[in-house]
Amino acid sequence: MMETVHVNLGPRSYDIEIGSGNLKDVARFCDAEQDDSHAVIITDSNVDELYSEPVGDALQEAGAQVDILVADAGEQSKSPDVAADLWEQLLDQGADRKTVVVALGGGVVGDLAGFCAATYQRGMDVVQVPTTLVAQVDSAYGGKTGVDLPEAKNYVGAYHQPVAVLTDPALLATLPAAELAAGYAEVVKTALIAGGALWERVARGEGIDEAMIAGCVRTKLRVVAADERDTGARQTLNLGHTVGHAIETTTGYARYRHGEAVGLGLLVALRLSGQDGLRALVAELLAAAGLPTRLEGADPEQVAAATARDKKRTGESVPFVLVHGPGRVTTGHDVGAPELVAAVRELCTP
Amino acid sequence: MMETVHVNLGPRSYDIEIGSGNLKDVARFCDAEQDDSHAVIITDSNVDELYSEPVGDALQEAGAQVDILVADAGEQSKSPDVAADLWEQLLDQGADRKTVVVALGGGVVGDLAGFCAATYQRGMDVVQVPTTLVAQVDSAYGGKTGVDLPEAKNYVGAYHQPVAVLTDPALLATLPAAELAAGYAEVVKTALIAGGALWERVARGEGIDEAMIAGCVRTKLRVVAADERDTGARQTLNLGHTVGHAIETTTGYARYRHGEAVGLGLLVALRLSGQDGLRALVAELLAAAGLPTRLEGADPEQVAAATARDKKRTGESVPFVLVHGPGRVTTGHDVGAPELVAAVRELCTP
Repeated sequence: MMETVHVNLGPRSYDIEIGSGNLKDVARFCDAEQDDSHAVIITDSNVDELYSEPVGDALQEAGAQVDILVADAGEQSKSPDVAADLWEQLLDQGADRKTVVVALGGGVVGDLAGFCAATYQRGMDVVQVPTTLVAQVDSAYGGKTGVDLPEAKNYVGAYHQPVAVLTDPALLATLPAAELAAGYAEVVKTALIAGGALWERVARGEGIDEAMIAGCVRTKLRVVAADERDTGARQTLNLGHTVGHAIETTTGYARYRHGEAVGLGLLVALRLSGQDGLRALVAELLAAAGLPTRLEGADPEQVAAATARDKKRTGESVPFVLVHGPGRVTTGHDVGAPELVAAVRELCTP
Repeated sequence: MMETVHVNLGPRSYDIEIGSGNLKDVARFCDAEQDDSHAVIITDSNVDELYSEPVGDALQEAGAQVDILVADAGEQSKSPDVAADLWEQLLDQGADRKTVVVALGGGVVGDLAGFCAATYQRGMDVVQVPTTLVAQVDSAYGGKTGVDLPEAKNYVGAYHQPVAVLTDPALLATLPAAELAAGYAEVVKTALIAGGALWERVARGEGIDEAMIAGCVRTKLRVVAADERDTGARQTLNLGHTVGHAIETTTGYARYRHGEAVGLGLLVALRLSGQDGLRALVAELLAAAGLPTRLEGADPEQVAAATARDKKRTGESVPFVLVHGPGRVTTGHDVGAPELVAAVRELCTP
């Protein structure tokens, strides 16, 4: 089964192809049949061991010269230093504007390789091949690329649309359980925003497949397209992230992974929305996926204060994304501090 | 006297204002009247001493918070390391997407500051304030920004149009004579491409003024607009650069400045064009501006070989931009090696 999502951006339009086993089709997007075609795979040390060889083989069989650049796995590779290192390696490999970059990995690789492709010789083609669930349902789409500054995530970057995204759900089989679970929180969030068939399948606890990923992708792209300037509606995608981020800050980014914190944030948002039935169902889904549903090691007052700080609110209330039902998510609800503390406190009770 | 050139690029349209003394108008382009307005001047150590204060004062008087970031003067600052340093300084100064960068300097500052502005938070506004003749007639326009990799000039960058270019010819009064002369070779080249009134004024040896700079700017923008994809006509802007670059390579970038080499390259192109009268006139203009008209310290055979290498030609001929008369410059002329050697040799005779 193959799902194709066409992203209409005029001259920068591209297709997202979602299908198990489609990794072997990568050459089709790299002009590998052209004379002198040159592809550079940029990946990380974890993904390299698993998938550089099949991707490289597919490209070579199609006639491309293939080089492979490997960054250390982990967020710390999303840095100006590593980008500069990759630029020099691209130069060493003789890359030019006709070379295609294959960004093979999760969110870090997609952002890092995308940024290098956006800026090397002022722009080369990039094919995104997301290998984690978060990247397959979310971060590989939308054209945002970049690296972090110390203490400032994603502060340096460029908008650079891929020429194609090749999403192969079969790759998720090798994903560590914790990575898969972290991505699952984004799936639940996106399904709540989407409502309809996507939400129904997720609510029944069905497994991740092509159609479910495609549903998440279409939802994200629809929301982004409706709000290109990032002024309002796009904020719905922050559902669960407001408190989620405050939980990460308060626990020093050590206790909870991003996806775990987002799951907890979803539960708080549902409590603030007065959606007790939905909250219980989402808690069940998160728990079944191996995600935490109780907050430990953080004080509710501190989490609430961090939420206000995050939103640069010094006053009494914080703007929230709330849920009126599946498919009915709205932005800009002011929530008072005592209400917020109470909703977070509920996360701490058994 | 003030000349305004409007660059029509749809939503990214901007004005180039050319007028002596207009440096003091900088605040008009920085939204300095807005509450919380923030401007960051990026400059180099030479220009900082001369012009950071008047520019900063003008911005502050209009109500902006002003920070000044200073890179070492010289091409070596156009590096990923210096860009990374500036990104962190922008972060330290609390810059965000509403902050305006004022790129105050010559070509290096324009490219470096433009690249930082293009990529910090995925793009902030930049006002280009060119302070050298080369930047005022050429490099500040067109939206190309970037830094060098070791051994590969301009290999990392982004297209990022300025929100305005403020060109103040009065600043040229403090420019070292050699810098002014180097820019003059570009003026002669551009006037040859333009023909008409611009060429007539240059041919009469008239001094640089607003109208002459505006004429060069309009010529460059007209050529670029006619060939947005950089496939053909834009190559006319390379007049004199083919051999000019080979001279720089052959003499190890030590003996001749870029503008000096371009002047010598113009003389070779005019010889190859069979324009002996024009060649004599251009030689006079270059000499009057303090530019060399004879090649020393380089072997004509080596220069010819370097020209072919540059153009990745292994065969017998090199494609050249030739001059049929002022305003009549065409591309793609194949020139044979013996003819090229003869034309370069003529540069070496007294």
